[in-house]
Amino acid sequence: MARRRREPLHRSLCAVSLDERLLPAGRGERDAIAALDGSRWHAAPWRPARGVVYLVGAGPGDPDLLTLRAARLMREAEVVVYDYLVSDAVLGFVNPRAERIYAGKQQGCHALSQNEINQLLVALARRGRRVLRLKGGDPFIFGRGGEEAEFLADRGVRFEVVPGVTAASGASAYAGIPLTHRDRARAVVFVTGHLKDGSCELDWPMLARPRQTVVIYMGVTRIAEICGQIVAHGLDAATPAAVIEKATTPKQRVVPATVGTLAEVAAAARVRPPALIVVGEVVSLRSSLDWLATRAAPLAEVT
Amino acid sequence: MARRRREPLHRSLCAVSLDERLLPAGRGERDAIAALDGSRWHAAPWRPARGVVYLVGAGPGDPDLLTLRAARLMREAEVVVYDYLVSDAVLGFVNPRAERIYAGKQQGCHALSQNEINQLLVALARRGRRVLRLKGGDPFIFGRGGEEAEFLADRGVRFEVVPGVTAASGASAYAGIPLTHRDRARAVVFVTGHLKDGSCELDWPMLARPRQTVVIYMGVTRIAEICGQIVAHGLDAATPAAVIEKATTPKQRVVPATVGTLAEVAAAARVRPPALIVVGEVVSLRSSLDWLATRAAPLAEVT
Repeated sequence: MARRRREPLHRSLCAVSLDERLLPAGRGERDAIAALDGSRWHAAPWRPARGVVYLVGAGPGDPDLLTLRAARLMREAEVVVYDYLVSDAVLGFVNPRAERIYAGKQQGCHALSQNEINQLLVALARRGRRVLRLKGGDPFIFGRGGEEAEFLADRGVRFEVVPGVTAASGASAYAGIPLTHRDRARAVVFVTGHLKDGSCELDWPMLARPRQTVVIYMGVTRIAEICGQIVAHGLDAATPAAVIEKATTPKQRVVPATVGTLAEVAAAARVRPPALIVVGEVVSLRSSLDWLATRAAPLAEVT
Repeated sequence: MARRRREPLHRSLCAVSLDERLLPAGRGERDAIAALDGSRWHAAPWRPARGVVYLVGAGPGDPDLLTLRAARLMREAEVVVYDYLVSDAVLGFVNPRAERIYAGKQQGCHALSQNEINQLLVALARRGRRVLRLKGGDPFIFGRGGEEAEFLADRGVRFEVVPGVTAASGASAYAGIPLTHRDRARAVVFVTGHLKDGSCELDWPMLARPRQTVVIYMGVTRIAEICGQIVAHGLDAATPAAVIEKATTPKQRVVPATVGTLAEVAAAARVRPPALIVVGEVVSLRSSLDWLATRAAPLAEVT
C-alpha cells in the first residue's frame, strides 16, 4: 500500500511543462459513464478555459464511496492537494500523472498551515491549472472548505464544490448504527472536538439533550472531557455510545459502551484518530444491524 | 424524461422467470471500475448465494453524486424498490432489465405503507433475489433505513447498507452555503419537520441556539410554524435562512431571507417539496460562494 508522502511545496510552484498540462482529460470519465450508463444522462462537456479549483469530498475512506463526479475529477486533475484524512485507497484513483501535494492536517501536525494551503490553491489556479483540493468526507462539514472557498472567491479564482459522503454517514452505515430513528432520535447533531482556538468549549447543554444522536468528529483525543461534560450536563450516563475508528476502511473498529464508560473502554482498546464518537440510543441497534460482521467478503482488497 | 410510475405490487410477487434471475451481473461494475481505475483497488468479488437487500442512498438528486458502489449495484439489481425522493435522472442508472417498484413516500401520498414496503422487501429476498432498496440521500438520515434494516434483521434476511450524500450536503455544496464554519457554526443539526405522529413537536430550544447551522428536512409545508417557533424560542429573527428546492438538480432554486421572513418569502416564491430549510449565519456566505451561478454549463442535461 502506498504511503502518504509530503511532497515539497516548491515542486508545485516551479514551471509546468506543456505536456503536463495536456493530460488526456475526460477519457476515464467517458469510459466510466458509458460503462455505467449507456447513456441517457451524461456530465456536461465543460472544460475550464482558465485555472479552477475543485473542492472535492473524498468520502469517509472506502474508495467505493467516492461519488462518480469525484472519481472523474480525480482522473482529470493536473494537481491534487490532499489532506491527511484522504485514504490511500482513495488516492489510488488519482491520475498517476498528476502532481500530488500533501497538505497534512493531521491533528497537531500540519504539513502546511491553512494560510499556506489557501495561497497554494490560488497560485496553482492562477497558473491556469485544474486543481483538485481533496478533503476527507464532505468539504462543507468540518472540512474548512468554506474558508478555502471564501479565500478563492475573494481573489477571483474560479472554484466548484463537490459534496461527499460525510464520515458520520459512512460510519453509521458500516457500523449498523442509524443516525436517526423515528422512535429514538428525531435529530442528529454533528460537532467537532477540535476547535479553532484549541479549546473544546462545546455547547454542552445542547449536546446533552435526549432523543437525538450526537456525532463528534475529531474528538477522540479529548474523549474523557467530552463524555464527562455530556453526562455532567444531564444526559443519562447509561446512554449507549461508541467510538468508530477508521470508518469504512478494512481496518474499521467499533468500540461500543455507554457515554459514562466510553472514555475508559476506548482507552483500553487504544483507539486512535481518525475516529468518530457517536452518542445516542441508536447505538444499541448495532447489536442486530451489524451486517458487515456477517458479510462473506471484506469491503475492498489490495490486489 | 421518464416519469415515475407506480407499478402494480402483484408484479413483484408473481413468479420470476429464470432468465430474469440470471442477469449478466457485474459486467457494468467491472467496466466502470476498470475505466475509473486501472486497477489496484476493486470491489470484492462477492455474490450473494441467497437473496439480499441493499439499502442504498441515491444521493440528493444529481446522478453524478451517486457513489461508485450505488451506481454498480443499480446495474446489477434484479428488483429496485424506490422512493419518491429518488430522481428520474438517478433512475436512469438502473439496469433496464430490472423490475421497478415505486414505493411512494411523497408526503401525504404513499403508494405503499411502510409495513407493505417492509413485507415486500422480505418477500423478494426470500425468493433469492438481489433487491435494491433505493432511497433519496442517505438511508440512515431520515430515510427510515434503520427501521427497514431492523425488520429485515428480525426475519433473518441478509442486507447491506450503502451510505449516500445526504440532501443537506448536496444542497450545501450546490447552494454555496457551508454547513460548518470555524467562526460562524461549530455544529450542524439535522431535523425533520415530518414526524411519526404527524405533529411537528421539535426540540425548539435546541434549534434556537446561536453559532450552529440547522437544516430541516421535509419541513417546507410547515415552514411558518418552524421558523416562528425558532424565533419564539430566542433565535434572532435577523439570522440568515434559506429554502433550497430540488437541490442539486437542474431545477434547483435557492430562496434566501432571514428566519423571521423566510416563511413569507418562500410562500411568495411558491416553494414546493422536496426542499430543505437552512438556518444559520453560514447562509450569508452564499452571496460570495454561489459558484454555480457563474458556471459555464449546467450540471447535467438530457440528451
